Amino acid sequence: MNCELISIGDEILVGQIVNTNASTMSKMLNSIGCWVSRIIVVGDKPKEIEDAINESLNRVSIVLTTGGLGPTNDDITRTILCKIFDSSLRFDNSTYEHIEQIFTKRGTNVNKLNKDQAMVPEKAIILDNALGTAPGFLFKTNGKILIAMPGVPFEMEHLMQTHVLKIIKVQFTLPEIHHRTLIVQGTYESLLAEKLSDYEINLPADIKLAYLPSPGLIRLRLTYRPPLGLSSTDLIDHAFSNLKSILRDNMVSDIDEPVSAAIGRILTASGKTLGTAESCTGGYISSQITMQPGASHYFKGSIIAYDNTIKTSILGVPEDLLKSYGAVSTQVVEAMATGALSIINCDYAIATSGIAGPDGGTIDKPVGTVCIAIASKSKVISQQTVFTSRRDVNIQRATNAAFYMLFNELRNQ
Amino acid sequence: MNCELISIGDEILVGQIVNTNASTMSKMLNSIGCWVSRIIVVGDKPKEIEDAINESLNRVSIVLTTGGLGPTNDDITRTILCKIFDSSLRFDNSTYEHIEQIFTKRGTNVNKLNKDQAMVPEKAIILDNALGTAPGFLFKTNGKILIAMPGVPFEMEHLMQTHVLKIIKVQFTLPEIHHRTLIVQGTYESLLAEKLSDYEINLPADIKLAYLPSPGLIRLRLTYRPPLGLSSTDLIDHAFSNLKSILRDNMVSDIDEPVSAAIGRILTASGKTLGTAESCTGGYISSQITMQPGASHYFKGSIIAYDNTIKTSILGVPEDLLKSYGAVSTQVVEAMATGALSIINCDYAIATSGIAGPDGGTIDKPVGTVCIAIASKSKVISQQTVFTSRRDVNIQRATNAAFYMLFNELRNQ
Repeated sequence: MNCELISIGDEILVGQIVNTNASTMSKMLNSIGCWVSRIIVVGDKPKEIEDAINESLNRVSIVLTTGGLGPTNDDITRTILCKIFDSSLRFDNSTYEHIEQIFTKRGTNVNKLNKDQAMVPEKAIILDNALGTAPGFLFKTNGKILIAMPGVPFEMEHLMQTHVLKIIKVQFTLPEIHHRTLIVQGTYESLLAEKLSDYEINLPADIKLAYLPSPGLIRLRLTYRPPLGLSSTDLIDHAFSNLKSILRDNMVSDIDEPVSAAIGRILTASGKTLGTAESCTGGYISSQITMQPGASHYFKGSIIAYDNTIKTSILGVPEDLLKSYGAVSTQVVEAMATGALSIINCDYAIATSGIAGPDGGTIDKPVGTVCIAIASKSKVISQQTVFTSRRDVNIQRATNAAFYMLFNELRNQ
Repeated sequence: MNCELISIGDEILVGQIVNTNASTMSKMLNSIGCWVSRIIVVGDKPKEIEDAINESLNRVSIVLTTGGLGPTNDDITRTILCKIFDSSLRFDNSTYEHIEQIFTKRGTNVNKLNKDQAMVPEKAIILDNALGTAPGFLFKTNGKILIAMPGVPFEMEHLMQTHVLKIIKVQFTLPEIHHRTLIVQGTYESLLAEKLSDYEINLPADIKLAYLPSPGLIRLRLTYRPPLGLSSTDLIDHAFSNLKSILRDNMVSDIDEPVSAAIGRILTASGKTLGTAESCTGGYISSQITMQPGASHYFKGSIIAYDNTIKTSILGVPEDLLKSYGAVSTQVVEAMATGALSIINCDYAIATSGIAGPDGGTIDKPVGTVCIAIASKSKVISQQTVFTSRRDVNIQRATNAAFYMLFNELRNQ
């Protein structure tokens, strides 16, 4: 039972926003056994929207669109839907009352553009949207369904959760889809594939292995799509446990999660605490850690020592060290890490200093040079690496490298 | 001269990764006047890839694919391309030498899977990829072109930069595409549209206005696609300047940039410095500021006081205040902000404290409650807000709210 997603809006086609809606929806659909076979993005042109919807309805039974339902002139999805489903518009009282409520709360009156949002296709079933002024629309045609939702991410998620997943489950008999993800480090995709060639050949036909490399780590995903009606995860659990035993030495996590979450689990289990002293990463490490729910159980805080005066005044890095070796040196990050350990009063501290770019590089220390230290009460380790990307990627890579260093320390405790 | 992008890989369809490649490519293509009319994502199934490519080649003159060129079994794009273009594979010596070099640098030998990556379609022009083992492929057919690139984002960007944009510019006569973006706050999409209804009616036919709302701010984009051969931005510059004068009071920036960049420009111009004292935002504010190139000119550092002990020991928040009002209070964030001003020795300080969720809420202070303060040498202001999303969105909204508070202070100086 395949589904296609159509995202509508020039803002995606010109690269102004990234299509996060599609991945959110895919994850939610997979969780109920609905496979997304294609994602399409089209702009705000009537013919392009109409063609895309008709093509999708020809290919699959479930079509979900997002975008183009707002109150402004560039929002034309409703009109196209009326054309496709040969429908006219009617005034919907309960939609209007909901819009009125929203504007009363905001302390203003409903204007004509918002009142128009209560005009809905007469052939659509209205899916009320508690979080916004644009409701969703459900159309049924020849055993197939099309659901149109607004493009604002949290409104779309709300409609998916309250209406769409339920409608799909009621209307269709769905198989199951199971994913298992193993995160590994310290190897290359091709070496991994070589190591796994026998494993892959012997995988059951319903299980597929996929490789997803990213700077510094590789995610291996097993996807199991059993025949309709079969409800057991034994086959994929067995295959996954084999995979883990083959790759035990490289394994970072057997959950598809950020490395910061894996670190959080280890720290929570051991009752240890963490702090950071960041220069070039500028708080990115700290923010990745604190994005994890429950971070307050193990994360105490950070000193973001962007300016060298903070390195000396708060972290207590000796001026001599800065003068002799420069701020970007293993000596200085080690001093930052031990300083953080003491002033933050934590069990482990990560410290970074580097040249993120685009400016500030020298011949000795080009843009991308990053020093990282990990301190615990018993030891301090450090490394110097040169990343070769642009500013944001250098910061992300330095953060990943720091997480792996800490992860390995924690694992070896 | 339209272009379609095809992203290949189950990892996007199952929602494991977000399709950032498409938006990066769209931006680059727009900059040379090449309009992306559709983005398609298909999985790792031969028939689905083949259909998508053939359909795109029927619709447009330029088709760019990413993904499926790696060394593993789930990488099948090369095979499909050979089928579509009726081509066989040949061994390419210079590709092989490049692969060998990469592995020599890594200190390992080329294995069979990587050697296979030197097998290239004989009908393709090879686009060498300095950053990875998989080269790009260019096919020409009936005046149209198809270019296949690897899916690793920085390798794709490298190929776009060194080969693809040049090839498109040489092969096709391109019109110009100009975008202007105005970022506004303190209003609603429908109010804005009402205010702009006359403006919109009077826009020249080649200029289109689009609305892009997000929590707390709205981006208005003008897109100008002049007739082929016309090379003047007068029309859009004039329209943009009218738009700015209508919306002067709500304007945050007339560049499509993060608010942190607008703040950076103001601080750089005034020679003032900034620091933060963050609890619930956990370094996210600091990391958004330091993602901007040149941040070291105005950003001095942060105290991430996640644990209350850091609030008292480093920021000097009186214990009494924490006891009387709780960590999430305007009183405490004001003390955090003035503490940061002094210990970081900066001209402006942002402070945050709140309950990001999912746990930790109370009846008085539910999940999403966030207090924000801005301190300067002459005054301290604060506000308490309740956001109602999940953890990561609450953190992002608190960060945006803090940026607007600071932005308004800076503008009123």
